[in-house]
Amino acid sequence: MDGTLEFDGVRYPDGRASDPRALGWMQGTPPAEALCIRFADDRFLSFPQIRWSLSHMRELVPTVNVWRGEASASPLGDVSAADEAAIDDLAFTDMHGRPRRFGESLFDVYTDGIVVLHRGRRVYERYFGALAPQVPHSCFSITKSYAATLCATLVHEGALDDRRAVPHYLPEMRATAYADATLRQVMDMQIGVSYSELYADPKAHIWDYSRAGGLRPRPAGYSGPASFYEYLQTLQPEGTHAQAFAYKTVNTELMCWIMKRVTGRPLADMLSERLWSQLGCEQDAYLTVDPIGVPMGGGGLHASLRDLARFGELMRREGDWHGRQLVPAEVVRDIARGDDPAKFAKAGYTLLPGYSYRSMWWVSHNELGAFEGRGIHGQRLYVAPKAEMVVARFASHPVASSAANDPLTLPALLALGRLLQSR
Amino acid sequence: MDGTLEFDGVRYPDGRASDPRALGWMQGTPPAEALCIRFADDRFLSFPQIRWSLSHMRELVPTVNVWRGEASASPLGDVSAADEAAIDDLAFTDMHGRPRRFGESLFDVYTDGIVVLHRGRRVYERYFGALAPQVPHSCFSITKSYAATLCATLVHEGALDDRRAVPHYLPEMRATAYADATLRQVMDMQIGVSYSELYADPKAHIWDYSRAGGLRPRPAGYSGPASFYEYLQTLQPEGTHAQAFAYKTVNTELMCWIMKRVTGRPLADMLSERLWSQLGCEQDAYLTVDPIGVPMGGGGLHASLRDLARFGELMRREGDWHGRQLVPAEVVRDIARGDDPAKFAKAGYTLLPGYSYRSMWWVSHNELGAFEGRGIHGQRLYVAPKAEMVVARFASHPVASSAANDPLTLPALLALGRLLQSR
Repeated sequence: MDGTLEFDGVRYPDGRASDPRALGWMQGTPPAEALCIRFADDRFLSFPQIRWSLSHMRELVPTVNVWRGEASASPLGDVSAADEAAIDDLAFTDMHGRPRRFGESLFDVYTDGIVVLHRGRRVYERYFGALAPQVPHSCFSITKSYAATLCATLVHEGALDDRRAVPHYLPEMRATAYADATLRQVMDMQIGVSYSELYADPKAHIWDYSRAGGLRPRPAGYSGPASFYEYLQTLQPEGTHAQAFAYKTVNTELMCWIMKRVTGRPLADMLSERLWSQLGCEQDAYLTVDPIGVPMGGGGLHASLRDLARFGELMRREGDWHGRQLVPAEVVRDIARGDDPAKFAKAGYTLLPGYSYRSMWWVSHNELGAFEGRGIHGQRLYVAPKAEMVVARFASHPVASSAANDPLTLPALLALGRLLQSR
Repeated sequence: MDGTLEFDGVRYPDGRASDPRALGWMQGTPPAEALCIRFADDRFLSFPQIRWSLSHMRELVPTVNVWRGEASASPLGDVSAADEAAIDDLAFTDMHGRPRRFGESLFDVYTDGIVVLHRGRRVYERYFGALAPQVPHSCFSITKSYAATLCATLVHEGALDDRRAVPHYLPEMRATAYADATLRQVMDMQIGVSYSELYADPKAHIWDYSRAGGLRPRPAGYSGPASFYEYLQTLQPEGTHAQAFAYKTVNTELMCWIMKRVTGRPLADMLSERLWSQLGCEQDAYLTVDPIGVPMGGGGLHASLRDLARFGELMRREGDWHGRQLVPAEVVRDIARGDDPAKFAKAGYTLLPGYSYRSMWWVSHNELGAFEGRGIHGQRLYVAPKAEMVVARFASHPVASSAANDPLTLPALLALGRLLQSR
């Protein structure tokens, strides 16, 4: 409780001590140099700048709108003081064996906002730092869960065949690792491709991919791939498909390319038409775009917290939204059933025993039947059907890995699910 | 009627022939190279690319949201078929002496959309090309009229004193052309400053200003001003203040800097709090921002067409919005009264005899009492109190000068005002 936290041997100011408003980031006219966050200086995703940036991404990079349509916002109920107090006080033990309370623990995962729905009604809601109810926040890899749910819907509708090999849809990919990969293998991330996504490694491929997509500054004289699509065509094989889960964002980008090629509909429009305008979302969302306008399907979605919760609630209801089937029930059931945990186990996520990965959702196979969308800085969409619970959380954790917050997050959400299940 | 139009000796495809959807700009997965519009290639504001870009600016540059708030959209009535037909058929004579009809003339000013309100109700509405009712379009210099209306409001409220010299608010500007300029001279653009805004001249200062603000690509090794504020501090005197109207966008940028310095409120928040959330705007708007997040007050606003019309209607009603005084009536009356036409005449706008310029509105002193916000590619907000008319128009004219479309626009709007005045 000295205002710092340690991860992997490094100490960071905790959630309270790194509050971006209190620190004054981007305040002033102009901001003092030391408080300025620019795209070009490449520190906008460094800590503690990230605590501001994830709620202000469109001010740093180009984006495309996801229109909410013309309908009124769908009601989510109001949080009662009794619910709020009960959840704040909820006791649990974190994976380090320490007794915790739900409310105070939020600061230690650098929470920017959290909404808890029980049976579709809000029972808890909090905002911190740079976030506010109307402000879209980076979903990062929760974007993948949105995109693949749409892709699975297109498969269900017959527009796509997930048994087809990638080059059937994208002949450009014939000379790549994806020459003999099926769409289903892409959707489940079981691809043998040479591509590393270790954020702590400055030479990881994720940075080449980001530079290609215009999401990180390019060095002077840059002559690498000029877009996501160009980058994807450089990917070479490594290992065999369908053997193991291997989390690689390029798979999502490729999946989105197939969706766009076949349907002709931009991802932003598809999200608007099939989800945002149907769910009574409160705010427009947005997607970051690459230099030729292609949205980053692997991580570019920015949504308001309540709208993220609405998507979770749609999944909890197996795609039914008050009588309208927005996502086929079989698509949601297929996700909730998950895939083979043995393939997942090979990926070595020691904090996630028994999990599997299906259509870009993380499936817990736990007592709550929970499946999750996960973003690397603590963003989380936790759908727990057996507790009739949805938790939407935005965070800006200093460590770009869910493993840094899972020791707190997973026990907290399990305890919360049990509490609500008992009601 | 051969599908082309001539301006300054150059022939261009006309509005129909340059429709960006028909031409296929940015369509395809990916778009063909010849149909691709990128920020970096510096042709996104060239014709005909601009016909796409002005409705897609946020996909090219960073932007900040102007939130519409939580209220329902305010009603504007529905267009009747009789009104639509009567206005389409309205006859007038353009400044070249040619007989025209209102409806067909829209293509010759490269109209992207137009809404006409009479007594606050829609009597005409059209969309073309890349625009749709929910899509924000570049207002360009109509942004100035929004910003200066807010500034005049701050003066009225006592937060600012327009008799003060600029360095009173911004000591940084002491060694510039603005050392002895008053805020009022800035608001009325009567500043003796060395700064040229001739868009046809690639060496004009407007391009330095744009590069400083990150709105045009910077050459490799660029070492010029890194933000709007840095650029403003380079401006040197030329001539004397208060002698003549001289249209220079940097004046607006400086005015916005003063507003932000004194109030601490970002322009986007001020627009949201004082206008968007109060007027029942339908869509969020946005402002382009420079590399340190400063919005371009001189031209960065992008709004939906109907929301632009709502602002015009607020001005027509002298700031009263159904019983709430959103802008002081005296501020609007001061704008409508205009300034000294003799000072305006010195600027040499031969198509605008008798005009003046006040608080960044163009005041016609014509029989309709009209005052206008004007964007250089044909964007126009025409408020005609004596006709109880407001016309909001977006366009993407190939020539970056109102002089290219005024020969059609001004007679058309005068004829329309007379028609509605007679009802």
